[in-house]
Amino acid sequence: MINKVQGLQTILEMALPDQAIHSDEIPWVPQGERVWFKPLRFDLVNGRWINLLKVSGGGKVNRHRHSGGQVLGYVIQGSWRYLERTWVARPGTLIYEPPGDIHTLVVDGAEDMLTLFMLEGVIQYLDDDDNIIYQDDVFTKMERYLNFCKVQNIEPLNLRY
Amino acid sequence: MINKVQGLQTILEMALPDQAIHSDEIPWVPQGERVWFKPLRFDLVNGRWINLLKVSGGGKVNRHRHSGGQVLGYVIQGSWRYLERTWVARPGTLIYEPPGDIHTLVVDGAEDMLTLFMLEGVIQYLDDDDNIIYQDDVFTKMERYLNFCKVQNIEPLNLRY
Amino acid sequence: MINKVQGLQTILEMALPDQAIHSDEIPWVPQGERVWFKPLRFDLVNGRWINLLKVSGGGKVNRHRHSGGQVLGYVIQGSWRYLERTWVARPGTLIYEPPGDIHTLVVDGAEDMLTLFMLEGVIQYLDDDDNIIYQDDVFTKMERYLNFCKVQNIEPLNLRY
Amino acid sequence: MINKVQGLQTILEMALPDQAIHSDEIPWVPQGERVWFKPLRFDLVNGRWINLLKVSGGGKVNRHRHSGGQVLGYVIQGSWRYLERTWVARPGTLIYEPPGDIHTLVVDGAEDMLTLFMLEGVIQYLDDDDNIIYQDDVFTKMERYLNFCKVQNIEPLNLRY
Repeated sequence: MINKVQGLQTILEMALPDQAIHSDEIPWVPQGERVWFKPLRFDLVNGRWINLLKVSGGGKVNRHRHSGGQVLGYVIQGSWRYLERTWVARPGTLIYEPPGDIHTLVVDGAEDMLTLFMLEGVIQYLDDDDNIIYQDDVFTKMERYLNFCKVQNIEPLNLRY
Repeated sequence: MINKVQGLQTILEMALPDQAIHSDEIPWVPQGERVWFKPLRFDLVNGRWINLLKVSGGGKVNRHRHSGGQVLGYVIQGSWRYLERTWVARPGTLIYEPPGDIHTLVVDGAEDMLTLFMLEGVIQYLDDDDNIIYQDDVFTKMERYLNFCKVQNIEPLNLRY
Repeated sequence: MINKVQGLQTILEMALPDQAIHSDEIPWVPQGERVWFKPLRFDLVNGRWINLLKVSGGGKVNRHRHSGGQVLGYVIQGSWRYLERTWVARPGTLIYEPPGDIHTLVVDGAEDMLTLFMLEGVIQYLDDDDNIIYQDDVFTKMERYLNFCKVQNIEPLNLRY
Repeated sequence: MINKVQGLQTILEMALPDQAIHSDEIPWVPQGERVWFKPLRFDLVNGRWINLLKVSGGGKVNRHRHSGGQVLGYVIQGSWRYLERTWVARPGTLIYEPPGDIHTLVVDGAEDMLTLFMLEGVIQYLDDDDNIIYQDDVFTKMERYLNFCKVQNIEPLNLRY
């Protein structure tokens, strides 16, 4: 019958520090026309990253495939859908996108959408003939953030934890 | 030089379906005094789960340790902190809790807090002498949800995806 | 103080089945000149896969990058190295390859190597000018396996668990 | 149409280092009667660890549950089974143990078994009445390794990568 927590001293000595990242201290980085992201974590051990995505009313994220990892999203504000699906995301909707998923994000209304995304693997943007025209992963997202901070003369946060 | 997306036919035939879970269709399950959770995903392949946590003003989640997995949280509404830390979470704060982390969640103000948590591993609730008094994992959380639905005569959603 | 395992009934009713996959029941699928793989798991929830890799003496896996996920390897037999590194893998060596890693696998000696690899994300094969010439992920590896079984008239195992 | 690898400069500057850990440089740490483990990785970001397990002929790993994570195993040498299952593991068998799995490992023959295990979550050892009598996670395994090295006057490797 166990009582005491085991390994406590080792935890106290060796566990990694926790992190609290305040998104209002991070700039919106332009990602495309009427689309911005705000990074919250670059996990270089696992190749994952977390970002807020903002798309203004009538905006669109071009057709893309998620290769080599799953995606989870949680809608904070506004409404949006994938052209290839029948469901509509609204505040409080959790979205699971399996590896391989291909879709085009559109905001039909006038209201901005704001969604938290936790991503793994690679995002491959496709043209109408299924050619890959651009790819994103944890490194390209980090690069965009760091370059934007440099141009804007903003001190970047260390989000590699 | 690659052009076409590779493996497309296999994706179309075999990829898992995506999911859109609307949290306003799921009940608040009581977790303790002034504390509720609303499950959004039970991932039985990996032992992870996702839930919203609601703690009303002045409420508290007793001191606990996260063993065997990391936790990510994103604050939707309200403000809270861990008694053992100096930072205060507010809307838009992302929290990373490493494996082994021990803390006590308190809501100081009168406003309810609402936070999205993605959890792995085991939650071990501790008394003042570091004895484990209760444990939660993906199965106990699922059990609480299913039992609550049964008692309330609510049809449970299939959140095992 | 906890005694009984919690959630036991829910585990018994809902936990996924375990799996024991015998690699001697799976064929070697040609991957390139003097290179073969034998798949052991296609995890479509997470976009991961597990395979044995066999490279015969003097063989080579062309320069490639792992994008969007980590790789773990464990050497069963033989010896090999990455042209870009100084360490040499031998039986019993565990290799961790972080997201972004770029390398060229060579077997210097005459002995075949056999290594277990657990992969995530996307493998991008590069030419000398860093152009991507081919990509692999969990779906292309599954496709190669299924196509090989069809051509060879072998009944494929269901490795999607 | 993409050509060049994207984010290459950021990878070169910021990617984590790879690791090659030679298991013949690590001692066997006693885990129980006729049972030893040899740690290869303590992943404190995710709460996972990798170890070789050695059980000598006629040996046994007591009944235990894996809570809060999955387990993968690959048999290097010898043969073993779980009392609760019908399959028998042999060299080249890959085992997937889902979260919640409960089992008792036995080596029926006289030959030692050697198996690579990749573990997540918590291992809970149970008595015949399903009481938890001991728990292991990434921290307790690391603690056992470090304590054993201290007692044996061995310089421990840094396996926290």
